Amino acid sequence: MIGIFDSGLGGLTVARAIVDKLPDYDIIYFGDTARTPYGNKSKETVIQYSIENTEFLIKNGAKIIVIACNTASSVATDVLRKKFNIPIFEVISPAVEMTLSLSNLKIIGVIGTRATINSGIYNNMIKSIKPDIKVYSAECPLLVPLVEEGWIKKRETRMIVKKYLHPLKTKKIDTLILGCTHYPILKNIIKPKIGRKVRIIDSSLAVANKLSQYFIDNDIIPNNTGNNHIFVSDITPHFKDIAKSVFQKNIDLKQVKQ
Amino acid sequence: MIGIFDSGLGGLTVARAIVDKLPDYDIIYFGDTARTPYGNKSKETVIQYSIENTEFLIKNGAKIIVIACNTASSVATDVLRKKFNIPIFEVISPAVEMTLSLSNLKIIGVIGTRATINSGIYNNMIKSIKPDIKVYSAECPLLVPLVEEGWIKKRETRMIVKKYLHPLKTKKIDTLILGCTHYPILKNIIKPKIGRKVRIIDSSLAVANKLSQYFIDNDIIPNNTGNNHIFVSDITPHFKDIAKSVFQKNIDLKQVKQ
Repeated sequence: MIGIFDSGLGGLTVARAIVDKLPDYDIIYFGDTARTPYGNKSKETVIQYSIENTEFLIKNGAKIIVIACNTASSVATDVLRKKFNIPIFEVISPAVEMTLSLSNLKIIGVIGTRATINSGIYNNMIKSIKPDIKVYSAECPLLVPLVEEGWIKKRETRMIVKKYLHPLKTKKIDTLILGCTHYPILKNIIKPKIGRKVRIIDSSLAVANKLSQYFIDNDIIPNNTGNNHIFVSDITPHFKDIAKSVFQKNIDLKQVKQ
Repeated sequence: MIGIFDSGLGGLTVARAIVDKLPDYDIIYFGDTARTPYGNKSKETVIQYSIENTEFLIKNGAKIIVIACNTASSVATDVLRKKFNIPIFEVISPAVEMTLSLSNLKIIGVIGTRATINSGIYNNMIKSIKPDIKVYSAECPLLVPLVEEGWIKKRETRMIVKKYLHPLKTKKIDTLILGCTHYPILKNIIKPKIGRKVRIIDSSLAVANKLSQYFIDNDIIPNNTGNNHIFVSDITPHFKDIAKSVFQKNIDLKQVKQ
């Protein structure tokens, strides 16, 4: 069983990509909707929440953990790997690897929450592999609330996306990493604002590919049931609607206290 | 010592009004920044957090509690009054009383978070006192994140405020209750969008007046120190900046685990 957690519902884009790629594996998802969002909180708080989320998933049968939240991936991965003796996947290095495999790569842009961007993790990881590539980043703290409100097609969202992307556009980036699992939901707005020639890297696809490769390399055979268990720490009718539209499948949300 | 809590930093508008009105009393403030916001979470979760916040304040010397958060006031007041044997003030009934004391009152508008508006508390409270008055309400879930980002003067914020207020404007309201302690920070945007003739009720002033009257009625004498203790459950440089700008005083934020 693959355990997946996120600060809330954005990580369902990752769960969705994993289910599409690996339909025969069971997944258990935990969205910490009672304490969402993580992206504007401190490193220590996000680490503590990530430990609790991982403990919940393992207790409920997860044998592999996917941190489907860039904020938690950027600050909590090392701590979780030290603390828990099972494979732990995060969403950042697969996106970086996918990006660095592209040709004609000169200037990369990264967008994410304040916590992710402040951690400097994308910049450090890219520079450690290819020091000559330029990396520019921009924090976009209002995009998570806009997605969670379902303001996907609103004019104000387009204006805010344009404002956030402007500094990257002036740097003439050729590739943009969506460094937050909520952002794929805004792909159709982001693409025209940054410029249609700029390649967009969606970490949900990158992590699903990585996981699939891991299963092949380690001969891990699916159990052929493909059950999806989706848990959240808080439930409202509004969360239900968003979960359904992000996961694009009928979904049975169950609440657990965190 | 007056104990004040909020989901985050919006309640500092209430703390500020109390300190202005009652400068000789000690206050202890707790902002639950590690779990902010409350306004889109379920009733049960908000009640649980409110109990924990009240326990923290009492443990640290509070003799009176002010729930400086409309969401918590609307769903948790009764539970807190049953559970804790000290006076508990909330921000809703003072605002309603202040509103109903006005002359020429026909159509009232109320804005708040989704949880506050869904609770129906303003509507019910006003109707129970003056059944003939019309009440219209609008949920404004994005205003809290916009305030917390400091987007006070941005064009997008003005557009979003206009969009949220539009249904109330078409109802030709004569009075608007700001049903969220973050909203007084946007008063200068809200006023022109709703129309300059519409009277605006700021619950932070209403609750400070109510508290002052309570002290007079009960002969509660200040201890003449006027210390302010401000605690938060999470701390970031960004939170520090906002806290300072909302409280309009130098502020010493201390972190406690919640």
